[in-house]
Amino acid sequence: VKRIAISVGDTIGIGSEIVAAALADARVASRVDGTIFAPSAAPFAKLNARVVETKGILGCVDAAAFHCLGKRADALCTAPLSKERGAREDASFVGHTERLAQLCGVRTAMMMSGPRLRVVLATNHLQLSEVPKRLTAEQIVFVAKLAHGALGGAPRIAVLGLNPHAGDGGLFGDEEERIVAPAIAQLQALGIDASGPWAADGLYPRAVKGDFDCVVALYHDQGLVPVKLLDFRETVNVTLGLPFPRTSPDHGTADDIAGKGLADPEPMISALLMAATLAR
Amino acid sequence: VKRIAISVGDTIGIGSEIVAAALADARVASRVDGTIFAPSAAPFAKLNARVVETKGILGCVDAAAFHCLGKRADALCTAPLSKERGAREDASFVGHTERLAQLCGVRTAMMMSGPRLRVVLATNHLQLSEVPKRLTAEQIVFVAKLAHGALGGAPRIAVLGLNPHAGDGGLFGDEEERIVAPAIAQLQALGIDASGPWAADGLYPRAVKGDFDCVVALYHDQGLVPVKLLDFRETVNVTLGLPFPRTSPDHGTADDIAGKGLADPEPMISALLMAATLAR
Repeated sequence: VKRIAISVGDTIGIGSEIVAAALADARVASRVDGTIFAPSAAPFAKLNARVVETKGILGCVDAAAFHCLGKRADALCTAPLSKERGAREDASFVGHTERLAQLCGVRTAMMMSGPRLRVVLATNHLQLSEVPKRLTAEQIVFVAKLAHGALGGAPRIAVLGLNPHAGDGGLFGDEEERIVAPAIAQLQALGIDASGPWAADGLYPRAVKGDFDCVVALYHDQGLVPVKLLDFRETVNVTLGLPFPRTSPDHGTADDIAGKGLADPEPMISALLMAATLAR
Repeated sequence: VKRIAISVGDTIGIGSEIVAAALADARVASRVDGTIFAPSAAPFAKLNARVVETKGILGCVDAAAFHCLGKRADALCTAPLSKERGAREDASFVGHTERLAQLCGVRTAMMMSGPRLRVVLATNHLQLSEVPKRLTAEQIVFVAKLAHGALGGAPRIAVLGLNPHAGDGGLFGDEEERIVAPAIAQLQALGIDASGPWAADGLYPRAVKGDFDCVVALYHDQGLVPVKLLDFRETVNVTLGLPFPRTSPDHGTADDIAGKGLADPEPMISALLMAATLAR
């Protein structure tokens, strides 16, 4: 059983109800000792869970993170929050990940982890025309090393190419030769089981079959399209690079169905179970 | 039962055996009246099928195409050939699709059609850095109109955005506003049920659920990653824009397993059935 700090700052959306439902789930109960950070303990009264009442949306996130930094929890799991409502408390707020990275003074990477596919992104919220210009071998090495460390053991890491057919031997672009292959060579020199550059369309079916433990995608849609298509409900957003594991379900606050008993707790359950798995 | 012209020019790879196996399949036999174009009738002796013996790899493709142009067949289905071996017969040969387009004097588009997902590509074998520069509203309209015509009825066509989250309202790139939205407006003005620009990672699960009949992807990996991940064996490569429907299995000549009885005829079966479906 792992100690998980759970932030539920956003009281308008479905956060409270999915956290309450997830903690009541038998799979979670057997593996998670949760401490909830929320503006009010009321939604969790029936749970007999520890609740730390904290002011505001961002106050809950910060307090849960400090709980982890102080070693009072083994991992952080964040319920969804509204970026708009967060930005009303602090105009510089753009998202959970950025706030946690700043709070901990580290550089992070995003991994999406599902039952059949794990993908880590070398670039993320970047317009497509900037991807070939900004992609570096250093960034590919950085995210692959984080994935290697987080997964433990000797994970087989597949690095994708940028172009159709991974450039088809230089026919369509030279980024594979200039950027991706040198990154793979650096990773191999570090003793990491990295291979590629692989053609994305051919590689994913092999990764799903079990030939690889993690895929390094070079841009947002190259990584998130297959992951979300395959196992949407069970795929967890993992932040790598923080001093503690952090997971989160990959959906929003769904204000329109909040409080109606319609919210699906399965993504939150997956996020809590993954937090327990990553906690060492 | 539709009359399908089948080209099997490449005698070294698995072409002959998968065509023979596919034509012997009950699903195919009930829907396809095949005429085979091959350098030798020998591999099809047991089939009691019509075989037209033609010289060379490209001769088979050309003869099968002329058979369709002459209205003696309703659709063309091409078995895989080696681009290298084709280029030895004609140095200008780069692939089936390009040769057929030139032979017919038309511009074509590629559709990948599987049981759960149909995708048409606005750009194809183009290095990623060129995609934002070369993508045009005209090309999106062109491929969407071809898909609309080929599918019949009033297909619901989803057009993807180029950037993460389809640009997130202009936060990551302006191609959605400059290029994609105007294309959608033109399609709608033509009475075509087109919508978007959609975020690719969120759209595909909806398309698979049945919310759309066809997806317009803006570049190779955005379209082929989900299609190949989902139903690899049953997904058929369809060339749109020719005077006749043309389908083909999406794999190569697999020389290493040729003649060993190991080749899987299922993709060729899917290609023949799709040719029969598209034939009017």
